[in-house]
Amino acid sequence: MNKNRLEAFSDGVMAIIITIMVLELKVPHGTELKDIQPLVPTFFAYVLSFIYVGIYWNNHHHLFQSVSHVNGAILWANLFLLFCLSLLPFATGWMGENHLDELPVFLYGLVLFMACIAWWILVEIIIREKSNSKTAEKLKCDPKIRESAAIYLVATIVALFFPIVSCVIYALVALLWFIPDKRMEKAVKEVSGEEE
Amino acid sequence: MNKNRLEAFSDGVMAIIITIMVLELKVPHGTELKDIQPLVPTFFAYVLSFIYVGIYWNNHHHLFQSVSHVNGAILWANLFLLFCLSLLPFATGWMGENHLDELPVFLYGLVLFMACIAWWILVEIIIREKSNSKTAEKLKCDPKIRESAAIYLVATIVALFFPIVSCVIYALVALLWFIPDKRMEKAVKEVSGEEE
Amino acid sequence: MNKNRLEAFSDGVMAIIITIMVLELKVPHGTELKDIQPLVPTFFAYVLSFIYVGIYWNNHHHLFQSVSHVNGAILWANLFLLFCLSLLPFATGWMGENHLDELPVFLYGLVLFMACIAWWILVEIIIREKSNSKTAEKLKCDPKIRESAAIYLVATIVALFFPIVSCVIYALVALLWFIPDKRMEKAVKEVSGEEE
Amino acid sequence: MNKNRLEAFSDGVMAIIITIMVLELKVPHGTELKDIQPLVPTFFAYVLSFIYVGIYWNNHHHLFQSVSHVNGAILWANLFLLFCLSLLPFATGWMGENHLDELPVFLYGLVLFMACIAWWILVEIIIREKSNSKTAEKLKCDPKIRESAAIYLVATIVALFFPIVSCVIYALVALLWFIPDKRMEKAVKEVSGEEE
Repeated sequence: MNKNRLEAFSDGVMAIIITIMVLELKVPHGTELKDIQPLVPTFFAYVLSFIYVGIYWNNHHHLFQSVSHVNGAILWANLFLLFCLSLLPFATGWMGENHLDELPVFLYGLVLFMACIAWWILVEIIIREKSNSKTAEKLKCDPKIRESAAIYLVATIVALFFPIVSCVIYALVALLWFIPDKRMEKAVKEVSGEEE
Repeated sequence: MNKNRLEAFSDGVMAIIITIMVLELKVPHGTELKDIQPLVPTFFAYVLSFIYVGIYWNNHHHLFQSVSHVNGAILWANLFLLFCLSLLPFATGWMGENHLDELPVFLYGLVLFMACIAWWILVEIIIREKSNSKTAEKLKCDPKIRESAAIYLVATIVALFFPIVSCVIYALVALLWFIPDKRMEKAVKEVSGEEE
Repeated sequence: MNKNRLEAFSDGVMAIIITIMVLELKVPHGTELKDIQPLVPTFFAYVLSFIYVGIYWNNHHHLFQSVSHVNGAILWANLFLLFCLSLLPFATGWMGENHLDELPVFLYGLVLFMACIAWWILVEIIIREKSNSKTAEKLKCDPKIRESAAIYLVATIVALFFPIVSCVIYALVALLWFIPDKRMEKAVKEVSGEEE
Repeated sequence: MNKNRLEAFSDGVMAIIITIMVLELKVPHGTELKDIQPLVPTFFAYVLSFIYVGIYWNNHHHLFQSVSHVNGAILWANLFLLFCLSLLPFATGWMGENHLDELPVFLYGLVLFMACIAWWILVEIIIREKSNSKTAEKLKCDPKIRESAAIYLVATIVALFFPIVSCVIYALVALLWFIPDKRMEKAVKEVSGEEE
């Protein structure tokens, strides 16, 4: 089975998720600075979610370069990931509109946690298929996913008491994922170099 | 005529359908648990619809692997399927917002029934084109489509009296379609194996 | 210059246009038949617009099969067509919500007229590039575009007095375009047959 | 790393941005000419933004033809550009709904300025990668980006006093970018001609 359509569909869904989030930035009726001020937290929530979807798209891009064939399990694990990501616009909008209140920040963390788990499942399934054992091994060694899942879990509990702290944690985990791109890039490069 | 653009267009439409459904999860104004509670049925309606679009996308993916050329009849049958699926966000939103009342559940079933019929027509047209007779034969034997159409019809009538029962039926049919993916996958694999 | 991205972008825009039109079908608050009745004209307007976008996508698909290279003129003519089509959701929503009143039906016709002119310009530019002179000749002979443009113009004027009549005309022109697909399909087939 | 998915994802995001802007044209409830009149500035804002996204898509198309490999830096510079463009629908809606008031026109200019800077960064990164040194050189000589950035900055300040003047400036810069397409087209053609 061909992976092109899975990639195209995932690209489509992620492109739409990233773009409809901006619809939560509701156009205000007034034209003063004070009319646009309530949108500031929504804007920062949007920036954070944009970065997260960017990271997932980026990693998805890398991950599927090591995949040659797609089966039913990969298709559904991928759909589960897209489902989790599709809840981001709602969580982003709720968090932004309520100026980082406890419950919305908790829910936002929960969605990030679920997306992380979905990503974990997808990676594990792809490793099990062993379509490319060397990349699989490299992926396996990467403790980033498990660490992130644990951090998200902690952050969601923290959110019930100090939501601002959780927001900082979410942003820091984004940084953690932003940097290791290069590590994986190198891993993929090494593997394809060895294969050539 | 080339099938790539038909696949790309269908992927696009299905990706958008799956994503705009989440817009029906309207961001609540409060931040208490009770503010988010009315969204629970909408959330479950969303999950069900997401799975249905996932199933259709998955089967669409499989079906068009057995198609080499696309003609006007296939194009329009495909557009009719996309039309039926495009009504899902509306039906999902209405069903979710009204806590599974009779008429919305009836309409949801009607949309599923229409989508099933549209799928049936598409499969029949592709079989008639006999672009790949072996897959066509396998597809023909599959009684799943006719069974589902009949079940949807019964479920829509049941919806007028016991909407909850219909919702359970819709979920069960989704399961029925979720599993046979492997059957068809196998069929396609056999065929391509024989051709090699 | 490569035509793949132009096709992909056009597919994307048309897929989104076709899908966001369904957002005009606003989820009603009640669950009675009478709550859904006001949506009936919007539904029919949606069906008509869906068919129109389907026709344009279909013809776009055919037209660009005869194009090998894309230049700035084609890119911008294509963007102008997409712009005209992007006004369809607005025109559809306004017409549907106001039960086929004079001005909305007039505007809907105006959008169809503009899209038709945009299509004409695109076809003319592609003919002038003479990338495939035989298909170009066939396209040139096709009087359908000029006829449709004239009919739309008449229908928009009629709309100011008898909007229902205009709606029937819009539907009939859709039929006129629905059928000649085969004519053009044949033309393209002949051309590619001669070239092989 | 392959550039196809980056192109597909960018096409998707730009296609959605261009299309959701039309959602800011809210369907009016009345059917008189006076009901549609308040939408006129929104319509012109939409036209301007459509042209801008068209220009960016067009240039993106050209730019990536000179790119053979994509790395992390290019991916993120591209995402930053898409982020800036994703703010256009909001800025367009705010500007249109408030009949070209000072602050909305200022914000619109700011978004254009940011998108221009993001484009600049993307071009610089691609030049630095020197994947195709001749195109890179040609790109480098092009003073258009720096000029535009400066003009936008001036226009945003002007907007606080004479917003109409700024709107005219934004439209003129669009023209400036609309024309040089041919210059770059020629550059790319020359380069590919020399390479053949």
